[in-house]
Amino acid sequence: MSLTIARAEGIIKAGRATAEKLGVKVSIAVVDDRGDLVAFARMDGARFMTVAISQGKALASALFGQPSGVLAERAGSPVFQSVIQMNQGRVVFGQGAMPITEDGHGIGAVGVSGATSQQDEDVAKAGLAAS
Amino acid sequence: MSLTIARAEGIIKAGRATAEKLGVKVSIAVVDDRGDLVAFARMDGARFMTVAISQGKALASALFGQPSGVLAERAGSPVFQSVIQMNQGRVVFGQGAMPITEDGHGIGAVGVSGATSQQDEDVAKAGLAAS
Amino acid sequence: MSLTIARAEGIIKAGRATAEKLGVKVSIAVVDDRGDLVAFARMDGARFMTVAISQGKALASALFGQPSGVLAERAGSPVFQSVIQMNQGRVVFGQGAMPITEDGHGIGAVGVSGATSQQDEDVAKAGLAAS
Amino acid sequence: MSLTIARAEGIIKAGRATAEKLGVKVSIAVVDDRGDLVAFARMDGARFMTVAISQGKALASALFGQPSGVLAERAGSPVFQSVIQMNQGRVVFGQGAMPITEDGHGIGAVGVSGATSQQDEDVAKAGLAAS
Repeated sequence: MSLTIARAEGIIKAGRATAEKLGVKVSIAVVDDRGDLVAFARMDGARFMTVAISQGKALASALFGQPSGVLAERAGSPVFQSVIQMNQGRVVFGQGAMPITEDGHGIGAVGVSGATSQQDEDVAKAGLAAS
Repeated sequence: MSLTIARAEGIIKAGRATAEKLGVKVSIAVVDDRGDLVAFARMDGARFMTVAISQGKALASALFGQPSGVLAERAGSPVFQSVIQMNQGRVVFGQGAMPITEDGHGIGAVGVSGATSQQDEDVAKAGLAAS
Repeated sequence: MSLTIARAEGIIKAGRATAEKLGVKVSIAVVDDRGDLVAFARMDGARFMTVAISQGKALASALFGQPSGVLAERAGSPVFQSVIQMNQGRVVFGQGAMPITEDGHGIGAVGVSGATSQQDEDVAKAGLAAS
Repeated sequence: MSLTIARAEGIIKAGRATAEKLGVKVSIAVVDDRGDLVAFARMDGARFMTVAISQGKALASALFGQPSGVLAERAGSPVFQSVIQMNQGRVVFGQGAMPITEDGHGIGAVGVSGATSQQDEDVAKAGLAAS
């Protein structure tokens, strides 16, 4: 039970189709349950900071097995602040990432950045739904 | 469509003229759309921390395509805190930088530090207006 | 003249086909001329360190506009040691990345990690040849 | 006795004229005796890594009051390695920077990056000669 590149690319493909419909330019990052990158795509015109932020949201979601938007509420807590520091800021507790599950187990996450936080999450959900 | 050294120097020249009128001593940094430095000038008597702060404000403005003063309101947010850490503290979410545009596209930013935040922004705007 | 996601994905697809023929499991990273990630894929079974190393080789190649294998000879030089540190170790001066050009201009690089250094470079070259 | 912005800009202007004659695209950084930036210009088409490397050479030259090319021979020494680490890699012990003096006292340095090491130094020297 682990995240395959085939599934990761399916998530990105479906997410991108949704982003195009919404008219937004985003980066989409898919990570495994350890938070390590499996597949990534930056749409033409997406700002460069979306590269790191999409991965950071995916990492947050994978680490905790929850949507990153849910975690955002606790981002100011001492524990979360330590998690951010431990990872040199590369964990991003902001809306836009969803955990990827298989038979109820967390196997990774997909993180999106470049549009509004809600649109980012919508793109992530659309990617998941199709995979 | 990219920021030339000629335009960057024009912005600095006009910004400095305004700073002299205001009687303030500032650093002025012009960066491209990726946040990399194109041109820089520190006026005689400007403190050394203005070197990094002017560049940090310009970087923030370039990253998000907005005046850094607008971003300052969200500086405490978890996502912005991560962005600061990811960049080893080199992004500064404080008033005093303006995005540089060409035909409606963001091509960089100018950041100023050394006077009050409002004066810093006035110098940045004066630089842009003349370029 | 800039690297599109379409071209980046074409490079990854062709590189992966070659890696499968060689029977190796690799990560393939495509970055733009600034070294920022455009597309990425980690084949099933590729070790997690290949994620960072493929990107680091691509970054080195993009920074200098040369195959990373050519740069490897100078990796111990003082200047290169500083470049590694400036980038928090994220630049990797090892064989396995090739610059991507368009009309003779460097627009990015493709970096590969997971097999022998020579195979890594072969995969990168195969990706480029097909794009 | 300190480095003025007027002198720094004169050095950059003369350096650039020489770079144009040589047909090379460089970044030129002028720092004070503390190594802090006073003025900077990146010529159109100079690679982004030249931004950090020109400043790093200037910093090395200012710190030791010598041409950075002379320091390059000792770059592997334990002390110099510590200096590099203390400064997060931002000191670059490579040819291309010259100290700026006034009445025999070091007041700063000019660092150049983007061409061959010798050409970088030639540009730095030309800038100094004219100022």
